[in-house]
Amino acid sequence: MIKVGIVGGTGYTGVELLRLLAVHPQVQLTAITSRKEDGLPVADLYPSLRGHVNLAFSSPDKANLSECDVVFFATPHGVAMAQAPALLAAGVKVIDLAADFRLKDRAAFEQWYKIPHTAPELIDQAVYGLPELNREDIKGASLVANPGCYPTTMQLGYTPLLKAVLIDASSLIADCKSGVSGAGRKAEIGILFSESSDNFKAYGVAGHRHLPETTAQLQRFTEQKVSLIFTPHLVPMIRGMHSTLYARLSKDVSNAELQALFEAEYRDAPFVDVMPFASHPETRSTRGSNMLRLALHRPEVDGAPGNMLIILVVQDNLVKGASGQAVQCMNLMFGLEESLGLKHIALLP
Amino acid sequence: MIKVGIVGGTGYTGVELLRLLAVHPQVQLTAITSRKEDGLPVADLYPSLRGHVNLAFSSPDKANLSECDVVFFATPHGVAMAQAPALLAAGVKVIDLAADFRLKDRAAFEQWYKIPHTAPELIDQAVYGLPELNREDIKGASLVANPGCYPTTMQLGYTPLLKAVLIDASSLIADCKSGVSGAGRKAEIGILFSESSDNFKAYGVAGHRHLPETTAQLQRFTEQKVSLIFTPHLVPMIRGMHSTLYARLSKDVSNAELQALFEAEYRDAPFVDVMPFASHPETRSTRGSNMLRLALHRPEVDGAPGNMLIILVVQDNLVKGASGQAVQCMNLMFGLEESLGLKHIALLP
Amino acid sequence: MIKVGIVGGTGYTGVELLRLLAVHPQVQLTAITSRKEDGLPVADLYPSLRGHVNLAFSSPDKANLSECDVVFFATPHGVAMAQAPALLAAGVKVIDLAADFRLKDRAAFEQWYKIPHTAPELIDQAVYGLPELNREDIKGASLVANPGCYPTTMQLGYTPLLKAVLIDASSLIADCKSGVSGAGRKAEIGILFSESSDNFKAYGVAGHRHLPETTAQLQRFTEQKVSLIFTPHLVPMIRGMHSTLYARLSKDVSNAELQALFEAEYRDAPFVDVMPFASHPETRSTRGSNMLRLALHRPEVDGAPGNMLIILVVQDNLVKGASGQAVQCMNLMFGLEESLGLKHIALLP
Amino acid sequence: MIKVGIVGGTGYTGVELLRLLAVHPQVQLTAITSRKEDGLPVADLYPSLRGHVNLAFSSPDKANLSECDVVFFATPHGVAMAQAPALLAAGVKVIDLAADFRLKDRAAFEQWYKIPHTAPELIDQAVYGLPELNREDIKGASLVANPGCYPTTMQLGYTPLLKAVLIDASSLIADCKSGVSGAGRKAEIGILFSESSDNFKAYGVAGHRHLPETTAQLQRFTEQKVSLIFTPHLVPMIRGMHSTLYARLSKDVSNAELQALFEAEYRDAPFVDVMPFASHPETRSTRGSNMLRLALHRPEVDGAPGNMLIILVVQDNLVKGASGQAVQCMNLMFGLEESLGLKHIALLP
Repeated sequence: MIKVGIVGGTGYTGVELLRLLAVHPQVQLTAITSRKEDGLPVADLYPSLRGHVNLAFSSPDKANLSECDVVFFATPHGVAMAQAPALLAAGVKVIDLAADFRLKDRAAFEQWYKIPHTAPELIDQAVYGLPELNREDIKGASLVANPGCYPTTMQLGYTPLLKAVLIDASSLIADCKSGVSGAGRKAEIGILFSESSDNFKAYGVAGHRHLPETTAQLQRFTEQKVSLIFTPHLVPMIRGMHSTLYARLSKDVSNAELQALFEAEYRDAPFVDVMPFASHPETRSTRGSNMLRLALHRPEVDGAPGNMLIILVVQDNLVKGASGQAVQCMNLMFGLEESLGLKHIALLP
Repeated sequence: MIKVGIVGGTGYTGVELLRLLAVHPQVQLTAITSRKEDGLPVADLYPSLRGHVNLAFSSPDKANLSECDVVFFATPHGVAMAQAPALLAAGVKVIDLAADFRLKDRAAFEQWYKIPHTAPELIDQAVYGLPELNREDIKGASLVANPGCYPTTMQLGYTPLLKAVLIDASSLIADCKSGVSGAGRKAEIGILFSESSDNFKAYGVAGHRHLPETTAQLQRFTEQKVSLIFTPHLVPMIRGMHSTLYARLSKDVSNAELQALFEAEYRDAPFVDVMPFASHPETRSTRGSNMLRLALHRPEVDGAPGNMLIILVVQDNLVKGASGQAVQCMNLMFGLEESLGLKHIALLP
Repeated sequence: MIKVGIVGGTGYTGVELLRLLAVHPQVQLTAITSRKEDGLPVADLYPSLRGHVNLAFSSPDKANLSECDVVFFATPHGVAMAQAPALLAAGVKVIDLAADFRLKDRAAFEQWYKIPHTAPELIDQAVYGLPELNREDIKGASLVANPGCYPTTMQLGYTPLLKAVLIDASSLIADCKSGVSGAGRKAEIGILFSESSDNFKAYGVAGHRHLPETTAQLQRFTEQKVSLIFTPHLVPMIRGMHSTLYARLSKDVSNAELQALFEAEYRDAPFVDVMPFASHPETRSTRGSNMLRLALHRPEVDGAPGNMLIILVVQDNLVKGASGQAVQCMNLMFGLEESLGLKHIALLP
Repeated sequence: MIKVGIVGGTGYTGVELLRLLAVHPQVQLTAITSRKEDGLPVADLYPSLRGHVNLAFSSPDKANLSECDVVFFATPHGVAMAQAPALLAAGVKVIDLAADFRLKDRAAFEQWYKIPHTAPELIDQAVYGLPELNREDIKGASLVANPGCYPTTMQLGYTPLLKAVLIDASSLIADCKSGVSGAGRKAEIGILFSESSDNFKAYGVAGHRHLPETTAQLQRFTEQKVSLIFTPHLVPMIRGMHSTLYARLSKDVSNAELQALFEAEYRDAPFVDVMPFASHPETRSTRGSNMLRLALHRPEVDGAPGNMLIILVVQDNLVKGASGQAVQCMNLMFGLEESLGLKHIALLP
């Protein structure tokens, strides 16, 4: 059994880790920290866990995280970089669900996140935890930077096309929509029910932190300079993310070839479902599951396939977009089957 | 034109007052205070008011409230009692949307609201602002205590029966459901979208502040001691309140007589709609309007009308349950037509 | 492995059975019938099942249901009674999620459901499938009548009190609230998003089919004549049911004794969670899980515990209120652990 | 007073016309037809209209529409073309909220709407009812084709840029999102609450009927051939439409110049609100009002304004996107103030 610690178990990615790990056959939940809720049984905060999780939150200083095999950081940015060095030194593997180690460019990190990076020596060592594109590196990693939710959808949608040199990397447009849980469990006016229900809006159009992360990762797969317009929107639903990705084809290619390209790319990926051409994936088909589904569309122009390709991508932002993906990485890091403990079927309706 | 001031214009009852008063034909909006948002144009906080309200928030000390004809307090409990004495002394009428003057029993107020009452000399003078039961007193009032949202539904549902001595006042059960806006515009975890959407729960079952208010008002209409069980619930909708009121009949009375009783009681009330017997009123039929709708049901027992009467009552908690009722009171206080500026049709769908 | 057939797999209880059974360790999904969708892969209708269920719907005549060990009827009323006799004769166990065998009183069935009962000889043989109250009978049953969703909450809330002769059975009031999925997957105006979102209403107050079922079952546990007022309401959420049960105490009993009574009653019930006294259970704490949670409240009157007891009960109407309960029965009928394949943790948020 | 008839008053655009016209100071509601609901009081179907609308539905043959001054068609496609010729011949003005007269290209109409056009002689005479771009023509029109909801947002967002020859008309991308009421009041599975709540999806990506309408209208303002990618999505909210419009700038222009262009274009338009540069308009800021709000964004590339312009446009799809716009046209056709009876403030929260 893998002894698991979770730092910051009170937020949504924390409770989602608990939901997944409490029934994972190879995991023993060992410690859950929360400075604020020290001593409170986890199930008192989250009654959904009554009967499943008997741990109480403990303050970080009391929790013996160094006795764990792996520690997940479900914390705001800046926490993992402070605690990871000591844990790694003690032989504990670390998976950070925040952004501390997502950007290889330290200056870019400090510019976008407005905090100094206090463990720059670990940046190179950190492995970007997107298994579909980085599987082998993750297997050998001690420190994994779990991807952002939006970047997961954009990378899995665009990368096959970039690798095959089929699209113009300089004119990508990603129009993305997220459920409200993506904003976290924070007491903020803007995400109150009465503010965000029965409403739709864009936000952060001037610049969202997931842009540099995505651009840098996409750049790995093309020699052309990547230029990406990224427009996030807030949807009045709890969970779910839908990315509508636009790419201009730069080569003559048939719809069947495009479909085959994606199917080949993800043939062995247990959590990417390439739907039939021209499908309309729904976010609810992934609710509570670690599955990401995508489908290709190609609008006709004057009766013939045009040069604009649309990739529709859906996932549960808290599972494949966060905690599920982190567990998927853990499975790889410990030599387990990639999908162990992650075979939940989406809750529909 | 009536010069109107609003203290605390940033909350939901405040912005709802603005929506109603900005198009009221006899009102001139004069001052809107907010300590926190001093200087901010109201329409910057509430874009729905762009083009309709040109005022900016001003801090309470700068606003010349004493030059108004009437000041509405859309504030937390405790603010009106501090400022009302000076305004009243200056000849300004006051309508308090909070609870400062709702309870005639000062000790009860201090017990339920946990603050000392600092203007006890005004308690007797204050008129309870439920026009359907108190119309004449409101016309002559300088200080009006606008009722709570739940109490409005319970009083308008039970009072005709109490006045006609038809029910057992000692076994009333009110199972009430409110939309989330009733909790106000406060940065609290429990009313986040991700916490309260797709969810239903009771709250405050052990004791809600609207209980003593309702009991005291109902007691005015019966010699029997009123005993009321009041169970509030939170519904995942923004606006709307639905009260399911149970009363045990103490006399032999036909359904037609019961229906006639309610129709007679509210014949001249422009904002109470007695629907046909056995209707199922929907909250959305009142969304954005000042109308309260109710309908009677009487389940059969062994094929005959039983002795349990059910009164279903719906309203928009922010309009008839708060700001609309306050404007209705203002109309009466200034000798205007009771429904002036309040004839909005509900938004459906 | 138990070979399982499902008749009527296109509705919500059908797809929910599929979600649960597809990962049940002792089940082999063998046949799913739908006259209308004959030949359509199940996962084409429900993309959430892609990769989990490879069956296609088949028309009832083609499906070899008699080779199954058990057949679930997730159909409208009237279907199970037509097909059950032949299946039972062939040695196949039957679990009906509709009402065909819930009422022992055939005349009452025909009155409330407006269809003649075509298999009256099976009514006596059918076992009412509420494991917490009927566990031993279910173990030996060939034909199980799975309870209605509302009746499950009312029975589990009231029965311990009736058995202990602590309440007045003649004045029960159940104010119940259900998510919209309880109305099924039917093309009806009233359950459109634009009709039922951001709205709340009561329905069927004059008489709901779950009333005679509940009354008859409660009557088993008391000598007093049961009289129950049952008011169902529609909540703008997909899943979830919240019953607010009122009962008048007929004996002097302390809160601690009441709490102990419920804890003792459900000590060995894996799917009933008796929460601490005065808790407010939320429907979301059961979303997607087979757990039913309940909590007791007792409002004070004049500073002392009153004689009204309130029992708050929540469940997921599609799981414990329907398909999960049916699987729980199946486990018992086949000698498996009662909770096998049913240990899903609720999806929160 | 203008005598108004409505054909097809039972759908959402019909009831929205009633909400707006019932309080319009120059309108007398004269006839509302519905073959199916003949004889039913309108307020029985829509309790929100109780006390405001006393008419009953009448079957089309009984209603004396030819005595009206203007008739609105809130019907499915194909109805207006059948009845308009006789009404126009009788001197009655006609406003069609469906698509019968939106496309000047008859062949395109028949291709996209799959029905033959039975009144082709009226196509040329019909005026496209988008007041901001067609005001003078509407004033003199007898037959108005009210625009589609999506096309209204796309035209008001793109046209100022096309007129000023600032963008590449051949690479427009409109990523649009609509509330569920846009699908109408039809008994269809896909728009049930349990199907569309807590969910997000694209639909009709392969081709939506609003595409040819929009392209044709945009083409009027540019010599370049318009090519538009249009991706509609369904948002779990009742009302509201958000269009995220992408356009590639073809000239060197500053943000201030772009902002000034839009402000000048809509200076005299009472229902277009050009918000400050880089605002994030919310759909709820238009809920129930006839206002359309838009804002410009221009993502930076390498620290300088890039060549991609984003126009965010929001409206209430049932008001400015349908019935409100129709009333706005009526006002112009009858020489009234353009905003008469349309000054509703949006319902927020």
